[in-house]
Amino acid sequence: MTKVAVVGAGQTRYGALQEGGRALFAEAVKAALVTVDRGMAPGEIEEGWIGSVGSGGWQLGNLAALAGEEAGMAGAPMHRVENACASSGFAFRNAYLAVRSGAVEVALAGGVEKMTDLSGVHQRYWLGVSGETEWERLAGLTFAGVYGLIASRHMKEFGTTREDLAHVAVKNHRNGAKNPVAHFRKEITMDDAMNAPPVSEPLHLYDCCPVSDGASAVVLVSEKVVGKYTDSPVWVRGSGAATDLLAVHQRESLTSLRASAVAGKTAMREAVVGHRDIHLAEMHDCFTIAELVAMEDLGFAPKGGAGRMVRNGETEIGGRLPVNPSGGLKSKGHPLGATGTGQICEIFKQLRGKAEKGREVKGAEVALAHNVGGSGATCAVHVLGV
Amino acid sequence: MTKVAVVGAGQTRYGALQEGGRALFAEAVKAALVTVDRGMAPGEIEEGWIGSVGSGGWQLGNLAALAGEEAGMAGAPMHRVENACASSGFAFRNAYLAVRSGAVEVALAGGVEKMTDLSGVHQRYWLGVSGETEWERLAGLTFAGVYGLIASRHMKEFGTTREDLAHVAVKNHRNGAKNPVAHFRKEITMDDAMNAPPVSEPLHLYDCCPVSDGASAVVLVSEKVVGKYTDSPVWVRGSGAATDLLAVHQRESLTSLRASAVAGKTAMREAVVGHRDIHLAEMHDCFTIAELVAMEDLGFAPKGGAGRMVRNGETEIGGRLPVNPSGGLKSKGHPLGATGTGQICEIFKQLRGKAEKGREVKGAEVALAHNVGGSGATCAVHVLGV
Repeated sequence: MTKVAVVGAGQTRYGALQEGGRALFAEAVKAALVTVDRGMAPGEIEEGWIGSVGSGGWQLGNLAALAGEEAGMAGAPMHRVENACASSGFAFRNAYLAVRSGAVEVALAGGVEKMTDLSGVHQRYWLGVSGETEWERLAGLTFAGVYGLIASRHMKEFGTTREDLAHVAVKNHRNGAKNPVAHFRKEITMDDAMNAPPVSEPLHLYDCCPVSDGASAVVLVSEKVVGKYTDSPVWVRGSGAATDLLAVHQRESLTSLRASAVAGKTAMREAVVGHRDIHLAEMHDCFTIAELVAMEDLGFAPKGGAGRMVRNGETEIGGRLPVNPSGGLKSKGHPLGATGTGQICEIFKQLRGKAEKGREVKGAEVALAHNVGGSGATCAVHVLGV
Repeated sequence: MTKVAVVGAGQTRYGALQEGGRALFAEAVKAALVTVDRGMAPGEIEEGWIGSVGSGGWQLGNLAALAGEEAGMAGAPMHRVENACASSGFAFRNAYLAVRSGAVEVALAGGVEKMTDLSGVHQRYWLGVSGETEWERLAGLTFAGVYGLIASRHMKEFGTTREDLAHVAVKNHRNGAKNPVAHFRKEITMDDAMNAPPVSEPLHLYDCCPVSDGASAVVLVSEKVVGKYTDSPVWVRGSGAATDLLAVHQRESLTSLRASAVAGKTAMREAVVGHRDIHLAEMHDCFTIAELVAMEDLGFAPKGGAGRMVRNGETEIGGRLPVNPSGGLKSKGHPLGATGTGQICEIFKQLRGKAEKGREVKGAEVALAHNVGGSGATCAVHVLGV
């Protein structure tokens, strides 16, 4: 089996950006190539996978060919992957499998989303259809609504409090404030979080990730050619993916996403690592409650115990398991299709000791990325290590 | 390197169907599993890739999870691939690479499209954005328009005639008339084709494929487990894929699709076959001229020589190289995302000697599938053999 390494990773800043999706993607590819120690031209990329949820909504279709062309990879086979907010987590899995197969030596995985400056219909439509339609969307249940239900149930079952959620928001804003690519580069206080206007009880404004534009890209290569590009590869140690029933009412539990648990177990088994071997994790915190549920589903906290871990500062940078040192979806932002490989960008930076001052996870050697699509209908988890 | 085999393949009928996309996909998976000699339950499928262009347009999103769930594969990782009309050709490539990597032993590749009974806006939108937007779509150039330009230029450069195009239509309708899944199961005459109303000169009605609903699915397994499922596998011998510039005016030639040429060469090189080793081909004949151009780009005819081959009956069943024994997109139909794996379904049937009476390619052992997205912006080619 061919081993697979990440040798480059880059992203645009996230936020309400002026550029279109095509330009953003090209910028991310350029940013990724710049990080390849011994250099790489776009023409060296043999095949690419691009995650995007609503690319048709930009009025530009056939994204695979279009984005490849714009990024200097014209001619190379390109695939668009759409798995809701886990699109580029799945794009990364495809690129990993392709290199592992021996058919491709140098692959690109990335993602892009343009969410602002679209007609409101388009934006709401593409967000909305990523959830369940017949029982949820058409009944008026938004994503904030679903996660509000999950939070309420988590509070009832395990005593989780609004303060626990606020701790997640404060931590992620603190991390994001030091991340130059983050959508929100400002710290918030517990008071800010607690007193923010409600969105979908018990979730208030600072419990919800923003609507962001952005793009991210990473370069994967086989062990056969890795020496050509770097002496400091970040190896893909394990990859796991899973789906779950789309409608939350059909699932056994409201307080657990089975796809996360299965994908996490698969990735960690393949990587042959235990929870104590993981030095940092990027988790899909589309809402603050999602970070707590992910910690539990992935086995980093006992069921119902994530709130306490966050309260105790164990997930802060410097704590036992830093979670979302990038700022997470909450503060770094959530350009849907770009989020999954954006997590890999953060891990690449951290594991190579290149994270910005004040938000470095010192000595980190192994990390986990957790990317969710819809309200848990799909999930991809990757373990990387130096 | 793990060898990869197709052990099951099935599809719905193509046409203006009553069922929705979700039900169609489940029907195709069921049809594929029925063809597995020693049987297979949907739960044995470890991972799946689904091609679809406009799935959001059915008002149901998150297709990967949704379609997997409906087809009995809940829990298994599922990916949606969107590469315009080559979506499931690329889905097949992903499934092939995944099995080849050793990470997956049993994979599914399929596709589905619901095109009728949608609002006209949705249907035109999803078709339209698969082409180039800024120079073509917004200027009013439809797909029929692009292929009309290609046909005109081919006529001017090589003396191709409207009769040559009509021969393609008559042949494909003759084949499709005997294919129980075909959208149009009726033969047409040269007069019908020549006297049909114009769509985009020099293309007339019978030069254009229809707008179809339908779904297709194929099961791929590793050589390690193939014996569990069949003694008559159809091996994937070669896989090639490529992209081209999206806008036709930026390409070097109007009468050649470079992505086809590159993908074809790659697939045939991997398969270690020459043109005389291929016993039949399914080619992407969205318009009759596209079949001629594909024959030339893939090297089965010299440049400008495809018309003569068709005129001489060499591409008929019983001829030197039967092209589109299924009826092709022209007569079998073109449910965008389903077309690529639909071609594999036809090849699976033919190579196992199970094609319907009157349209069998007798003794066929090696076949080629050619699937194009947009007006040539993406292409996937596969060579299969028993």
